[in-house]
Amino acid sequence: MLCDLIIKGKYVLPMDDELSIIKDGFVAVSENKICAVGAGDEIKNYQAKEIIDAGKAIVMPGLINCHTHAAMAYFRGLADDLPLNDWLFNHIFPAEAKFVNEEFVRKSGALSCLEMIKSGTTCFNDMYFFGQEFLAEIVEKAGLRAVLGLDLKTPGYTVERVVELAKQFKDNELVKIALAPHSVYVCPRDVLEKVKQAAGAENLRVHIHVSETKKEVEDCKQARGKTPVEYLDELGLLAPATMAAHSVWLDDNDLKIYKDRGVKAAHCPISNMKLASGAAPLAKMLELEIPVGLGTDGAASNNTQDLFMEMRGCALMHKLASLNPAVVSARQAVKMATIDGAKVLGREKEIGSLEIGKEADIITINLNKPHLAPLYDSYSHLVYCAGGSDVENVVVNGRVIMKNRQVKTLDENKILREAERFNLQH
Amino acid sequence: MLCDLIIKGKYVLPMDDELSIIKDGFVAVSENKICAVGAGDEIKNYQAKEIIDAGKAIVMPGLINCHTHAAMAYFRGLADDLPLNDWLFNHIFPAEAKFVNEEFVRKSGALSCLEMIKSGTTCFNDMYFFGQEFLAEIVEKAGLRAVLGLDLKTPGYTVERVVELAKQFKDNELVKIALAPHSVYVCPRDVLEKVKQAAGAENLRVHIHVSETKKEVEDCKQARGKTPVEYLDELGLLAPATMAAHSVWLDDNDLKIYKDRGVKAAHCPISNMKLASGAAPLAKMLELEIPVGLGTDGAASNNTQDLFMEMRGCALMHKLASLNPAVVSARQAVKMATIDGAKVLGREKEIGSLEIGKEADIITINLNKPHLAPLYDSYSHLVYCAGGSDVENVVVNGRVIMKNRQVKTLDENKILREAERFNLQH
Repeated sequence: MLCDLIIKGKYVLPMDDELSIIKDGFVAVSENKICAVGAGDEIKNYQAKEIIDAGKAIVMPGLINCHTHAAMAYFRGLADDLPLNDWLFNHIFPAEAKFVNEEFVRKSGALSCLEMIKSGTTCFNDMYFFGQEFLAEIVEKAGLRAVLGLDLKTPGYTVERVVELAKQFKDNELVKIALAPHSVYVCPRDVLEKVKQAAGAENLRVHIHVSETKKEVEDCKQARGKTPVEYLDELGLLAPATMAAHSVWLDDNDLKIYKDRGVKAAHCPISNMKLASGAAPLAKMLELEIPVGLGTDGAASNNTQDLFMEMRGCALMHKLASLNPAVVSARQAVKMATIDGAKVLGREKEIGSLEIGKEADIITINLNKPHLAPLYDSYSHLVYCAGGSDVENVVVNGRVIMKNRQVKTLDENKILREAERFNLQH
Repeated sequence: MLCDLIIKGKYVLPMDDELSIIKDGFVAVSENKICAVGAGDEIKNYQAKEIIDAGKAIVMPGLINCHTHAAMAYFRGLADDLPLNDWLFNHIFPAEAKFVNEEFVRKSGALSCLEMIKSGTTCFNDMYFFGQEFLAEIVEKAGLRAVLGLDLKTPGYTVERVVELAKQFKDNELVKIALAPHSVYVCPRDVLEKVKQAAGAENLRVHIHVSETKKEVEDCKQARGKTPVEYLDELGLLAPATMAAHSVWLDDNDLKIYKDRGVKAAHCPISNMKLASGAAPLAKMLELEIPVGLGTDGAASNNTQDLFMEMRGCALMHKLASLNPAVVSARQAVKMATIDGAKVLGREKEIGSLEIGKEADIITINLNKPHLAPLYDSYSHLVYCAGGSDVENVVVNGRVIMKNRQVKTLDENKILREAERFNLQH
């Protein structure tokens, strides 16, 4: 069989239900889809225009970042070691008001895309208050897959405008548009009601910050006599197409509502630790089989967009929070960053694993490094040892967008020079 | 002035008391010592045989790893997601009994040295049950600085033998030998008493695991009616030359004893999270001005030896544990990995900062990367963004042991091939 691309490597992790590890395996790609996954001599049945032999490497699905603010890369490290409310209202919102415009979104967004490609992310679920139509162009150029949401707190970026944008991108192979009301503490009731209606009528996904801090929950209870989850449920906004970012301060009734309504969650371990938001009830969510993916949050609260750090942070923080080292195994963390992330975005039939007929989003991790030797278990190394800089090749939708760490779709030097020029304080 | 080596870079962080940031700075080295630290045109006063212009980089003291088991690199990822006692007694101790011999220590130790160099560690404080005299040869070859301790649980490796070894290495520029009784739960009372005597008589440093787990403390209380700290104090083992690794489960009285006796601590954030040992009372230790450095622990419980992960893990875990995002600032974390680590080893007059007359242990971090752009504060990026793979050049004792990520002292390919050959399960 003649294919377009074959990727070979020592360990192929398809992220199928069995969490198989295929030794000396390969993945074959025809156009933008996976047409074969196999091992050893089976490869003789396939020819390809391009063969990437990753050698001593892990070959796996591209990582899925379920909660980002990609345009914020230029605010990386702007303010640290502060409580969320101080950080957000006194540092981030003012900086955004001062600097964010079309040019900012294009340049800072390009830096995020570059960083994501170089650390193995192939799909991200984004929310921002401005300019996602410009980011969409950058994402397409980068060759990444993304769902871009507008947070509906900016004049002009109304529900109607988002619905319009979503129609424009309906047939786009890489970019989709979502409704992304910021939160119950930023969006007024009438906006949330409009979101509910539009989401149902237009079949759009909803992306919203929920119960990130204790303060958010307490304020909501005081104002409305309900938790944010109860309030959103009253508004009818909790549905299978809804993804709740953070979901830290959930009580058992909130969790039951998530389960009953089919809500998905994006867990952001590093951001939740850095802002001291707290430890989400991940073990309970997993027990209830609520789909949970991983998110980096924006570069201002993390401060990277490296999902390897998120997998490690997730496994570590919950062992600490529960004082139980068996909580969040390496396998569980890798699932969250791949197939479970796909479920969270409602895309598990398209991406998140290496299976025939799925879209070809594939990365390879170079194991020929001191911190990755020796190797007893690939999953363990992905979570407890590897970092984004170990990613060597990235394929999205069948297209090789990074080869041997050279990004093919973006001009790395130009993006870094532009970031240097954006010089707030120096 | 003619020097041997000059290192230039955009931001020099000398880690002096003021935590200065010198823009467009340089460090000059004469023989094995720092002879100048300056900025801008001052460099015209110096010529050097070798000039490393690190460009857009941070230049800082080499990182100090206060608690390692370097020979364990070959057990990286052998067993994860298990409680400390199960992990230690059912997996690690049996693997050690089966595999560890002179050849193992040399090869696995070389892998650790390679990993440490490639992630910016220039000095480490090690403990192991066997073969530190072989590791010493590897450390010297690698050009690293180390304090090697024997844990006194192996026949033949007695206190007397350690004292003998320490004499052999007395004038060694890079390697020192310490007494490193494993813990109160492994070493019998008579061994600990001998350690106390020898440490005083021979002026040796003592390195011991203390109160790592709740179980250790409870067992000790049950057996002796005292906490491990109280018991060690009764034995007279707590003194300014004593470094207590982990120090997780300390009560206020234990902390007072540390303070009164001048004890130092090695905090191991990633290991303590991964094994769910708990969060050490770091804020209290810092408040009491007990010197605390960072340690990776061995590669079987971490699973890397990358101190950048430790700085980040430290800042994040304590924000989570205290729900206070101001706890452990980026600056505090960098201090712990450098000058405070030197204090913990009693070497703050020799290493840990870039100051005239100190030994030249210097690293550079390449900032020309997507995840490190833009930059508002160097300390923030070191803790919240950088990783060991961003380290570009490493100097120890005035000798360039890594240049542009090429390790000059060890054969990287050979070490990786040997690690591959050590094939326990595959």
